Amino acid sequence: MKVVRTIAEMRAIRAGLAAPVGFVPTMGALHEGHLSLVRLAARECGAVVVSIFVNPTQFNDKVDFARYPRTLESDVAMLKGSGCTVVFAPEAGEIYAVGASTSIDVGAVAQPLEGAMRPGHFAGVALVVTKLLNIVQPARAYFGQKDAQQVVVIRRLACDLDMPVEIVAAPTVREADGLAMSSRNALLTPQDRAAAPVVARALNAAHEAFGQGERDATRLRARMTAVLAGEPRAQSEYVSVADPDTLAELERVGSAGALVSLAARFGTIRLIDNILLTAA
Amino acid sequence: MKVVRTIAEMRAIRAGLAAPVGFVPTMGALHEGHLSLVRLAARECGAVVVSIFVNPTQFNDKVDFARYPRTLESDVAMLKGSGCTVVFAPEAGEIYAVGASTSIDVGAVAQPLEGAMRPGHFAGVALVVTKLLNIVQPARAYFGQKDAQQVVVIRRLACDLDMPVEIVAAPTVREADGLAMSSRNALLTPQDRAAAPVVARALNAAHEAFGQGERDATRLRARMTAVLAGEPRAQSEYVSVADPDTLAELERVGSAGALVSLAARFGTIRLIDNILLTAA
Repeated sequence: MKVVRTIAEMRAIRAGLAAPVGFVPTMGALHEGHLSLVRLAARECGAVVVSIFVNPTQFNDKVDFARYPRTLESDVAMLKGSGCTVVFAPEAGEIYAVGASTSIDVGAVAQPLEGAMRPGHFAGVALVVTKLLNIVQPARAYFGQKDAQQVVVIRRLACDLDMPVEIVAAPTVREADGLAMSSRNALLTPQDRAAAPVVARALNAAHEAFGQGERDATRLRARMTAVLAGEPRAQSEYVSVADPDTLAELERVGSAGALVSLAARFGTIRLIDNILLTAA
Repeated sequence: MKVVRTIAEMRAIRAGLAAPVGFVPTMGALHEGHLSLVRLAARECGAVVVSIFVNPTQFNDKVDFARYPRTLESDVAMLKGSGCTVVFAPEAGEIYAVGASTSIDVGAVAQPLEGAMRPGHFAGVALVVTKLLNIVQPARAYFGQKDAQQVVVIRRLACDLDMPVEIVAAPTVREADGLAMSSRNALLTPQDRAAAPVVARALNAAHEAFGQGERDATRLRARMTAVLAGEPRAQSEYVSVADPDTLAELERVGSAGALVSLAARFGTIRLIDNILLTAA
């Protein structure tokens, strides 16, 4: 496994990688969720590139950017034995040159939910993913379903720009108590960490109601809101039952199913999670 | 030489082309300017793809789009023997799928000159060029210097998005009377065609003045305006003496030289042309 820091090194090493090349873009602070993506890529591809880059343009909140965990040495150690072939860990100045001025707007799917709470977030995601895909030139790129709207945005981006890459989404990996793995979990206080599984419980409540035949989206949202309200440490930002492709809020869950998602704050730390409801 | 009409066919044939692949994107209505790009690409590349696609998203004027010449059969005939390996001539519905919503803004270099006169033009150019580059995946892409701002915009786009392609600009090809070759020349009335070389004469006047030591940009613009004013069939839209990289209007021409450009209407037909002034 090699670690490269510049675009030129990445392009040079790319030319010798076995096809098909798989790519797992990350912001580091790796956990089992990331490793599950790397292992999946290794099973499907001839070589796997993992990028580690805390992308400044996708943070609307400077405090969030500043305190985002940066753990390159332990990340590299974790990747050994995971199936990763190349770690691409550029500095910010390598990715964002002085004088750059191009921006990408993916349109309607980037507007609600995380897009509404984090202005500019998906423009930053679209820009850095486009750049990384152009540098790494993978046949397949792997993303966690935990960031469900990001998956929808990147599928839209890749489709609309005819990018020569297959976008693969892999299931959310969870802690034993149901909490979705996230690099931000490490920033929770012990009390908030203990309270955080309420997020998954709220989603499960919607899932159970759906399994019992509930199709009214307002009532599904209310079930989630009620569960979150039972945990005083959690401040709900949104609960959503949306079309899984357009992300438009639904009145009823139909044959296309629904993306059920929520965001909640625990102190100053913001967590998101989601499940897909699919018609049987 | 093969002619393909779908993205799937283009991708399939691309896999077997000899590297490096050269690409000449056009809107058809081919003339010697386009052929000079194809011949240059053929000298430098193992295979040459020419796209013919009248891109609707780069036309701000519906009349201009409707009357833009469409001459696919004669274009294909002209390309035989030029060194072209594959002609990619998709229908509009093949390139712009229902539901697409992604847009690209290249920023400041797309704002002045043609960007100011044709709102949305360079967003359309950036989008279609990005899509075509992702479909064709060339090592080199060739553009005519005749559309000088387009070259600047595409260089910025390719640089900012780390596209794995070299952008090559080739000299403007001119008729014997100096008129820059353009697909729109065929739309001129005989009288306007006879008057149109005033565009090149105006640029030459600036070039001569520069050669005699003139560095004041206001006076260079005035020279061009005076030449254009001598031809009553020409209506000047702009005359510009700008920084060749940023396209910001200059007060004086310094060591970086200048892009001297203008747009003028002859009846309802709009012509553009330019020259680069380079310090000796």
